[in-house]
Amino acid sequence: MIRVTFLPNNENIEIANGGSLWETMLKAGIRPNSICSGKGICGRCKVLLKEGITEPTVRETELLSPEEIKKGIRLACQTRLYNNCTVEIFPENRIGFQGIFPLNKVDNAKDFQSSFWLDTNIEKIFLTVDKPSLSDQRSDWGRVKEALVRTKGKNLNYLQISLPLLKKLPALLREADFRVTVVICNGEITALEKGDTADRVFGMAFDLGTTTVAGYLIDLKTGEEVSALAKANSQISYGDNIVSRIDFAQNKENGLAILQKEIINTINELIDKTLQNTGISRDDIYEITIVANTCIHHLFLGVILIYLASAPFLAAFRMGFNLKAKEIPALYLSPETNIYMLPTISAFIGSDILAGILFTGMKNSEEVALLIDLGTNGEIILSKNGELWACSTAAGPAFEGIGISCGMRAIEGAIDGVRLNKNIINWHAIDNGNPKGICGSGIIDLVSDMLRIGLIDKSGKLITKKECPFGIGEQIKNRLDIRSGEYIFLLVKEN
Amino acid sequence: MIRVTFLPNNENIEIANGGSLWETMLKAGIRPNSICSGKGICGRCKVLLKEGITEPTVRETELLSPEEIKKGIRLACQTRLYNNCTVEIFPENRIGFQGIFPLNKVDNAKDFQSSFWLDTNIEKIFLTVDKPSLSDQRSDWGRVKEALVRTKGKNLNYLQISLPLLKKLPALLREADFRVTVVICNGEITALEKGDTADRVFGMAFDLGTTTVAGYLIDLKTGEEVSALAKANSQISYGDNIVSRIDFAQNKENGLAILQKEIINTINELIDKTLQNTGISRDDIYEITIVANTCIHHLFLGVILIYLASAPFLAAFRMGFNLKAKEIPALYLSPETNIYMLPTISAFIGSDILAGILFTGMKNSEEVALLIDLGTNGEIILSKNGELWACSTAAGPAFEGIGISCGMRAIEGAIDGVRLNKNIINWHAIDNGNPKGICGSGIIDLVSDMLRIGLIDKSGKLITKKECPFGIGEQIKNRLDIRSGEYIFLLVKEN
Repeated sequence: MIRVTFLPNNENIEIANGGSLWETMLKAGIRPNSICSGKGICGRCKVLLKEGITEPTVRETELLSPEEIKKGIRLACQTRLYNNCTVEIFPENRIGFQGIFPLNKVDNAKDFQSSFWLDTNIEKIFLTVDKPSLSDQRSDWGRVKEALVRTKGKNLNYLQISLPLLKKLPALLREADFRVTVVICNGEITALEKGDTADRVFGMAFDLGTTTVAGYLIDLKTGEEVSALAKANSQISYGDNIVSRIDFAQNKENGLAILQKEIINTINELIDKTLQNTGISRDDIYEITIVANTCIHHLFLGVILIYLASAPFLAAFRMGFNLKAKEIPALYLSPETNIYMLPTISAFIGSDILAGILFTGMKNSEEVALLIDLGTNGEIILSKNGELWACSTAAGPAFEGIGISCGMRAIEGAIDGVRLNKNIINWHAIDNGNPKGICGSGIIDLVSDMLRIGLIDKSGKLITKKECPFGIGEQIKNRLDIRSGEYIFLLVKEN
Repeated sequence: MIRVTFLPNNENIEIANGGSLWETMLKAGIRPNSICSGKGICGRCKVLLKEGITEPTVRETELLSPEEIKKGIRLACQTRLYNNCTVEIFPENRIGFQGIFPLNKVDNAKDFQSSFWLDTNIEKIFLTVDKPSLSDQRSDWGRVKEALVRTKGKNLNYLQISLPLLKKLPALLREADFRVTVVICNGEITALEKGDTADRVFGMAFDLGTTTVAGYLIDLKTGEEVSALAKANSQISYGDNIVSRIDFAQNKENGLAILQKEIINTINELIDKTLQNTGISRDDIYEITIVANTCIHHLFLGVILIYLASAPFLAAFRMGFNLKAKEIPALYLSPETNIYMLPTISAFIGSDILAGILFTGMKNSEEVALLIDLGTNGEIILSKNGELWACSTAAGPAFEGIGISCGMRAIEGAIDGVRLNKNIINWHAIDNGNPKGICGSGIIDLVSDMLRIGLIDKSGKLITKKECPFGIGEQIKNRLDIRSGEYIFLLVKEN
């Protein structure tokens, strides 16, 4: 056995001699950054070996610079360990390192009130149930149902209740002195609570992106968005894009189960943090709604992807679908919590786009309208006269920094804002750190300003110093250069 | 450790020195016969110690005769073992020894056809599903549903399907070349099968008695009763009657879970034997229906009995109730198999009586009608002008031999038929064995004939030899005797 220590967190793990560093990281719970899922193609899983430096492999000499190799930088997927060693994981190469981050809450929710109204399918009703006596021997459930009919003033013959709740009912009724609150969802009682809890009704909405998962806590009594958090989708270490994840799910042992577990873990972490931040109890969440692209949608449910991924590209199902939290393995919610999966549109146009269509109200627009979703997959919806046309393609993960030589995710050190004019270069890096790369919003800023002042022509071509339009200052002009035979614009000078 | 060997099956088990024989039997999977659940009251758990005979306890000297003690007969619940020993279990004292036995099938089913007709809620439909192509990218479920609507010629918007079946769908459709049979139960698809299997539709009906559990296999295509088997309810070793089982469920650690497991085991054994006898596959059973007294009904579902057992005696619920086999722990049926629990009437009048009411059609009778169910619990239903009145009491387990000095269950050696007239005594013992006792049908035969020829008077009192009516032969008269100060009628003379 040899011992591997990971910095900066000083995680220690013992492995068999000759073990792969990539596998060791996974065992230690550290997910290597990767596009190629450890196949030695993308060169993303760089680590710094501080002790126990290994001989570089052929792939490493191809994918790493001589300086990097000299420093001790290696690729996790290429490295086999034969000595105790200390490995530093770079923040930008450690998925999930940034943890959970807040999203901008929709504070201007009132702006949307004309097109949206609170219409939850969760109903909480406080009941004073008749106490039993020798002259009233109705069953426990019978008297709860009678109290419901009395309180609601309508027939409830359709009402269902699950066995676990029926089992809970007798003791709960008596502990609560026959004063209970019932929760009704989709014609079924999904929770029973002691006393009057009708004021506490929450739901969560999740957007499962290929790269990022966002979770929103909504007060279903008021419609208020109480919390909005996001986190990297932990599936990323098994592939940065949909195609590589489909490949992993189909071709790796337990691939589907592993990816399902990762997305559920990510959701669990968001739920935990949301509850921790807001002080709301897990049992107060009665419903979650989920949108996702069709691939992540299937992965969350544990549905095989093979027919989604190969012609003629079929989803297993597309309809909106209710299920219980207990049907999803290890999803940490009250077991009877309702999960509503919004309908998907096709194998590659998911329910996330549907949510966008609903949100914009574009279907009812009298004008021609275009909705563009620039995620890791990009989708475009065109609306005309109430007809909608949709298509999708891989748009990213450029906006997460993939395929961009200096690209990176929006984490510490990423340039996330740029302002260029003819004489001045301004940029901003996240957390005001040293710039380490550029993320999606920085790229959009940069490209739009370069286009505006003429450093990029209408065809998208980067101009040379000689072609530089009149009026561009020397400071800017000098940043147009050639390196290794390629035209570049140097946004930040090396120290 | 000491070794205990059980005869006649030569089961061996090692236990700690000083262990209880009762517990040892349970560990060895042998359920002692008992009314008092091992409290040393009923004296039923007699065993014969062939080696390692123990000193009799005070309770044993009270409950066993000196001859029995001399022979080595002891009570399992009173005996602690300090030496290796060999213990013979008497067939009549070993619950379940008799195993599974056939019931008389309802061959005269046609007699009931006027009042019953086949009206199953299981529907099997063979579908030829459109194959997908690049010009038909509907989802797998979408095309199955379309084929269903096309085949059935009606709207099926209400139709549900569970996640496990949706997960199964894509591979199954392709393996079956898009020719599948769907099973619909209660507005939900509960099974998907390759090819055309619409002809194979079976259901099982169970009557969960306190003492005996019966299972009937019904061909839901024809209504034919294919098999009828019964078996002792394995819960018996934890109490012979409802009250002792309620006591066990409430006061023993895991009592409820143990009793639930026992009744499920009994059902599993009946299902196994039924499938084995008929060659029908487990997956061809799409629904089971269950009737039981309310206590066993609650135990099967794992619902606490405390409020059922104490005033004002409330069932947790009484309504008819559908659930899936997967909701009952370790019930060995296809997970989506529907279970319909018939409604119960009150805490002590179960769904078994309801089934009797339905079967007799007494509710619609123009005459006053009385239904008597002589089970371990006895129930009486009086019907007049469409109104039904019900009451129940402990009627047994006399008819299973409990409380009768020579009583026993209807197993080998039990006198199950008696014919008396003034000069002749005829009796029949099961399997033509030596008579070992008398079972319920024997008792009814005997008492009715004794009443008819005057050996019992109208008040139920056994007459003395002197009171014997004129015309009774000497042979009969001599059987009226006094033993240990009690009047007796000697049905069979000792050898």
